[in-house]
Amino acid sequence: PNAFLAGLPTTIFTVMSQLAAQHQAINLGQGFPDTEGPADLIEAAAEALKDGRNQYAPLTGLPELREAVARSNARSYDLQIDPNTEVVVTSGATEAIAACLMAVVEPGDEVVLIEPLYDTYLPVLRLLGAVPRCVRVQAPDWGLPEAELRAAFGPKTKAILLNSPMNPSGKVFSVEELDLIAELVRAHDCYAICDEVYEHLTFGVPHIPLMTRPGMRERSMRIGSAGKSFSLTGWKVGYVTAPASLAALVAKAHQVMVFSTAPNLQRAVAKGLNLDESYFHSLAQDLRAKRDLLSNGLHELGFPTLPADGSYFVVADIGRHANGQDDVAFCRDMVKEAGVAAIPVSAFYDPEGPEPPRHLIRFAFCKKEAVLREALSRLGRIY
Amino acid sequence: PNAFLAGLPTTIFTVMSQLAAQHQAINLGQGFPDTEGPADLIEAAAEALKDGRNQYAPLTGLPELREAVARSNARSYDLQIDPNTEVVVTSGATEAIAACLMAVVEPGDEVVLIEPLYDTYLPVLRLLGAVPRCVRVQAPDWGLPEAELRAAFGPKTKAILLNSPMNPSGKVFSVEELDLIAELVRAHDCYAICDEVYEHLTFGVPHIPLMTRPGMRERSMRIGSAGKSFSLTGWKVGYVTAPASLAALVAKAHQVMVFSTAPNLQRAVAKGLNLDESYFHSLAQDLRAKRDLLSNGLHELGFPTLPADGSYFVVADIGRHANGQDDVAFCRDMVKEAGVAAIPVSAFYDPEGPEPPRHLIRFAFCKKEAVLREALSRLGRIY
Ligand SMILES: CSCCC(=O)C(=O)O
Ligand SMILES: CSCCC(=O)C(=O)O
Repeated sequence: PNAFLAGLPTTIFTVMSQLAAQHQAINLGQGFPDTEGPADLIEAAAEALKDGRNQYAPLTGLPELREAVARSNARSYDLQIDPNTEVVVTSGATEAIAACLMAVVEPGDEVVLIEPLYDTYLPVLRLLGAVPRCVRVQAPDWGLPEAELRAAFGPKTKAILLNSPMNPSGKVFSVEELDLIAELVRAHDCYAICDEVYEHLTFGVPHIPLMTRPGMRERSMRIGSAGKSFSLTGWKVGYVTAPASLAALVAKAHQVMVFSTAPNLQRAVAKGLNLDESYFHSLAQDLRAKRDLLSNGLHELGFPTLPADGSYFVVADIGRHANGQDDVAFCRDMVKEAGVAAIPVSAFYDPEGPEPPRHLIRFAFCKKEAVLREALSRLGRIY
Repeated sequence: PNAFLAGLPTTIFTVMSQLAAQHQAINLGQGFPDTEGPADLIEAAAEALKDGRNQYAPLTGLPELREAVARSNARSYDLQIDPNTEVVVTSGATEAIAACLMAVVEPGDEVVLIEPLYDTYLPVLRLLGAVPRCVRVQAPDWGLPEAELRAAFGPKTKAILLNSPMNPSGKVFSVEELDLIAELVRAHDCYAICDEVYEHLTFGVPHIPLMTRPGMRERSMRIGSAGKSFSLTGWKVGYVTAPASLAALVAKAHQVMVFSTAPNLQRAVAKGLNLDESYFHSLAQDLRAKRDLLSNGLHELGFPTLPADGSYFVVADIGRHANGQDDVAFCRDMVKEAGVAAIPVSAFYDPEGPEPPRHLIRFAFCKKEAVLREALSRLGRIY
């Protein structure tokens, strides 16, 4: 067997979700909404099954979805994207990330990553024989340390994989930070893989695609997610926008990994991307209220929360409740004793890297208000 | 960019389908049915969208689908499979193939393949740094040469990737051939990745999973496809059955490549796998009649066809019509002049290997009778 895969631990999402189920806990671990996305998209997906288009979609996606992706890039970011050559539809953003990495890296290449990070980044990269160079944004304000970032780029750097808005931190990179990254990417003549699955989930700060920064249009692969944008995480429809030469490589990676994505879901997602700004606005407003509810509640219980301007997640300091426990032990006890599941943030650091912070836990707030209130009340009984 | 991906030519299926569209040709190239699968499965997929289960499915698939896969293995092949630990649902068989290869191979490992072969096998394998060792089944009877097969196995062999029923040849491996393969796999203490997407599409000969041969239960990863079994190729739902230790690795590969597959499609496929034998019987009967129609028609036009006991495909010899053209040139002319698209069989050989046969072309017969008749009549006008 492949020794690297064999050595990979079970994903923390599965571990915590199983524990949550065992203890009838409220699951604020894995990030998925507990309310379904727009009913008319679901209806559209159902209708689209019934008119005889259930055979292979084209490799790069249905034209109607590629066009919708291009239009939405123009509308939201003033990015002009050619739907015929610059869009690749994938089976979710996870596949898109793997495909973008496959498109550009070769064994021995270095890729700059920012910790804490999503849990497939490092395994995929290592399976491709690439070498991660991790830089950490630092609690409590998730600042990006310029000197470390500069030092992470070098002659072997092939790409940076940037997640903004960021999971698990909730950080949304500022224009200054993006310009610093862009400068380094240009200076090292490398690529940017931009995981922007939470692009429409920001709270009072703008999401700025790295691709919009000077010189980055031709170097960036930008990843979006229908699951996140339409609260339908199970559908697994993602999309990459990239200059044609890179999109062609992403398409080849997609060809050998999956080949194509269910046409009925693609057609419904196209409809979703054509929704007007008010849909995306109220999606973000709704989540913002949930973030505030959970974040304020956690504060009051003595769990200071870190800034979270986007995504489904807020990170809290276990602080005075820790009693010498690390985040993993704390989360295990919290499931059992309080009946609330969260994710230890140390799980989002390279296991081969330096010691991660051990005092932070991540809560998903993409849940019904009543669920968040009940979680807070359970926590209040114990802490 | 990744030099290997950059060097990969556009898949022949896309090239020929585009040519077919340009020339309003009948497309007997890419293998997909032109009639939709069972209406009640499509209805079930539509209904399943509507009861609030559109978030992430579990990593290894929904329990109802894993159970249906296990039951269908028991019913069709007397294979006892544990649905909890021995089944992994994937986003189609293409992903399953990549995941099974990732599960067992490491850079430098050798994998035995049988040519002519499906067009993602070699690229995936090479992207993983593995080394293909190809053996050819030989026209006109698709015999498996024992000495060459034995010689392909060696101390570095990690796996064989076997496709039976086979695309593009239509060959269904006999029990004697499977026993020879099993002997070699056992002797070299390696694995078998069994691409059996056409398992239910055989014509008067039994499909025998390599996994059922002595000593192979614990060494085999068996891949099935809802797309092929239910004539819904766009859904991209596949399933791997494997011993628990291997299934766990396949799941990890799936986790980092895609993570999960649309729940509504999984639920409909579970329903499909629970259909009784008569469904699968009439699916095969129907295809058999189509194979006969096309195959006999091609014979009469002076295109001798090779045996095709399973799959969607039959290979024909361009024989006396060739006029010195190779299969690629012949297919291009045939699209333009006759208005019928097929696939040159030389595209299914390792471009880095020895000279492939240049006198064979593959036709897909998974099309309406009227379409096949019209294709034959168009060919009859020219040849
Ligand atoms: C794909 S499971 C994890 C979902 C998610 O994005 C998260 O919880 O971080
Ligand atoms: C995934 S496109 C090709 C479909 C197929 O199996 C074939 O035509 O060989």
